[in-house]
Amino acid sequence: MNSFTQWLTQAASDRDTAGLTRRLVVHKSRNLIDLAGNDYLGLRRDERVLSASIAAAEEFGAGAGASRLVTGTWRVHEELERAIASLTGAATALAFSTGYHANLGVLTALADRDTLIISDAHNHASIVDAARLARGTVQVVPHKDVQAVAHALAGRTQPRALVVVESIFSVLGDQAPLLELLDLVERHDALLMVDEAHAIGVIGDRGEGMLGSLGMADHERVVATTSLSKSLAAQGGAFFGSHIVREHLVNTARPFIYDTGLAPASAGAAIGALEVLAQEPDLVKRVQIAADRLATACEVAHPDGAVLSVPMASPHAALAAVDVCAAHGIRIGCFRPPSTPDGISRLRLTAHANLSETDLDFCAAALREVVRRSRHD
Amino acid sequence: MNSFTQWLTQAASDRDTAGLTRRLVVHKSRNLIDLAGNDYLGLRRDERVLSASIAAAEEFGAGAGASRLVTGTWRVHEELERAIASLTGAATALAFSTGYHANLGVLTALADRDTLIISDAHNHASIVDAARLARGTVQVVPHKDVQAVAHALAGRTQPRALVVVESIFSVLGDQAPLLELLDLVERHDALLMVDEAHAIGVIGDRGEGMLGSLGMADHERVVATTSLSKSLAAQGGAFFGSHIVREHLVNTARPFIYDTGLAPASAGAAIGALEVLAQEPDLVKRVQIAADRLATACEVAHPDGAVLSVPMASPHAALAAVDVCAAHGIRIGCFRPPSTPDGISRLRLTAHANLSETDLDFCAAALREVVRRSRHD
Ligand SMILES: Cc1ncc(COP(=O)(O)O)c(C=O)c1O
Ligand SMILES: Cc1ncc(COP(=O)(O)O)c(C=O)c1O
Repeated sequence: MNSFTQWLTQAASDRDTAGLTRRLVVHKSRNLIDLAGNDYLGLRRDERVLSASIAAAEEFGAGAGASRLVTGTWRVHEELERAIASLTGAATALAFSTGYHANLGVLTALADRDTLIISDAHNHASIVDAARLARGTVQVVPHKDVQAVAHALAGRTQPRALVVVESIFSVLGDQAPLLELLDLVERHDALLMVDEAHAIGVIGDRGEGMLGSLGMADHERVVATTSLSKSLAAQGGAFFGSHIVREHLVNTARPFIYDTGLAPASAGAAIGALEVLAQEPDLVKRVQIAADRLATACEVAHPDGAVLSVPMASPHAALAAVDVCAAHGIRIGCFRPPSTPDGISRLRLTAHANLSETDLDFCAAALREVVRRSRHD
Repeated sequence: MNSFTQWLTQAASDRDTAGLTRRLVVHKSRNLIDLAGNDYLGLRRDERVLSASIAAAEEFGAGAGASRLVTGTWRVHEELERAIASLTGAATALAFSTGYHANLGVLTALADRDTLIISDAHNHASIVDAARLARGTVQVVPHKDVQAVAHALAGRTQPRALVVVESIFSVLGDQAPLLELLDLVERHDALLMVDEAHAIGVIGDRGEGMLGSLGMADHERVVATTSLSKSLAAQGGAFFGSHIVREHLVNTARPFIYDTGLAPASAGAAIGALEVLAQEPDLVKRVQIAADRLATACEVAHPDGAVLSVPMASPHAALAAVDVCAAHGIRIGCFRPPSTPDGISRLRLTAHANLSETDLDFCAAALREVVRRSRHD
């Protein structure tokens, strides 16, 4: 056996022994209730979103055909960027082919060797990878620890510093202390980078995200990213912020420059979702109502966004909860050690605007049962 | 002015002074002849590709809705993976949301601290970034230098080694010495990773790529990636190779695990393009005929794939050539120092199966003119 096959075989067997092997399961039934995905506004199958997607593909082609800087920029990209800027209140935006690309692109372009990157311990894998790929020095600070950020900023030896957080954290669903962090970056001449992937469409009266709702989206010390694959029901990512940063990204962000432009169908779908959101801002409220119902059933506090995190008594109890829900036709997510830094197993549930009253009643009953069971384990 | 704004302003002004500022230009006219993009088979606007794309969006939704490992795997992903495996001759495949993601995912998952990564100096930015992000030690070897690879393999101190190349290089359009490299990795107990982004749809009787045409796609020492955004006219990327590597990627490749699944519309478009290719293998020949015509006009050798690289007398001559072609309604690409490691400015032209005889005559005449002018500069 060659050394790679040997290594891969050993790794596979270690995963199996630890009960940690992941497998892809095809999503088969439309009757499943999906409380695990991130389609918060329930727009993936919305006719208006699909029409906008199809129209863009028919007008501009299935793929963009080239890098945005060669011949792969189409009018649909500009429209999308205008719509994102308009929703969030930022001066401008730049589309990327995934949310992952957006984080890789922005962080590597802004953090050179002379930059200290101060990164929250709960930041998403794409931010962690972006920080590693950037040339700056990375300092990880405890989750939402403003004091630790202040300390890192005060003690820095680099000319520049960049603090990076998610506005709504993807796993725990809690929110970053953006106002305090903004105050810190102002006092310490630094920049604040905020990933709004789980806040766009969910936070603010119009779903404008947390930066928009706090009036921070056009602040000169703020740069933001988002994904188009969650509330916006498509694929892709975006930067939003100032013109000077956008120009810098177009000129230096490798995951933008050396990548094919976002597919017109995905750009069109995201535009469609943004239009629906503008016409029906009530969708945002409906996500919050659904989140409330699920939180009450699970006996946890009302979440800041659409993501609920429910601590379980044990990894076993968490897995059992997933199975019981699955038996009811409800898909929920679950995190167990070693994926949870604090050793606590958790369910991850997401609220969706398109859950009917009946769906919510049904889910609430099932969740009440699994959470009580966990308690008596 | 804050330190970031100052730094960004300085960088912008340095770019301007050097004449290197890049700007996004919206692709406006359908009448332009695009010899710069990578839609080699001319399928971006093909009705069959668009229908397959639309059907997938309508059946599965605009976006995948979640990570492939949560609730974001749909039947269209499995179909796409089967179709890629079937074309290339690999045992199996795994779709990623971009070709960039595929390279990041495969290289970071396969090259741990105990791995030497031997990377060709002309490898694409996504491979360079992937190698930096991976935990292995990176050794860059001169372009297509088999001796240098042999030397690196023989002198390695790491238990494992991985040689990474593009089968058709994206800028120069030349081909990697895959048979010699395979021989080397066999003798030195290493792995060969091949990026087929510019070979799929272009190389081999059926467009199966260079690995397929050499009978190497199912070799236990070969792993491959491709993009779906070039010949396959969509967006996305893929790994193809063995089952054990696929399972390893599903379990450990962060740009796969922590990323939303490929949009159904893009997966559907790529499947549509693969079907067209299966029905009309002649498209491959037509790319080669077009490449021949362009090569003759530019007085360069017939390229290995669809990418032509035309050396120019000076950066000025290269820019002038782009302008003259643009005035004729022909878009071509161009690389000037510092983007060209050897200081030679080059035009980059791509051949397409859907160029008509008239288009080819017209392009050949324009190119003959700009190449001659460059010589008399
Ligand atoms: C906080 C956060 N940022 C970025 C991403 C990446 O976005 P995408 O899936 O569009 O690549 C995700 C999820 O996938 C996320 O949760
Ligand atoms: C050789 C090579 N690999 C990978 C990529 C990235 O593929 P994608 O544009 O699908 O991200 C490209 C071009 O963009 C490329 O030329």
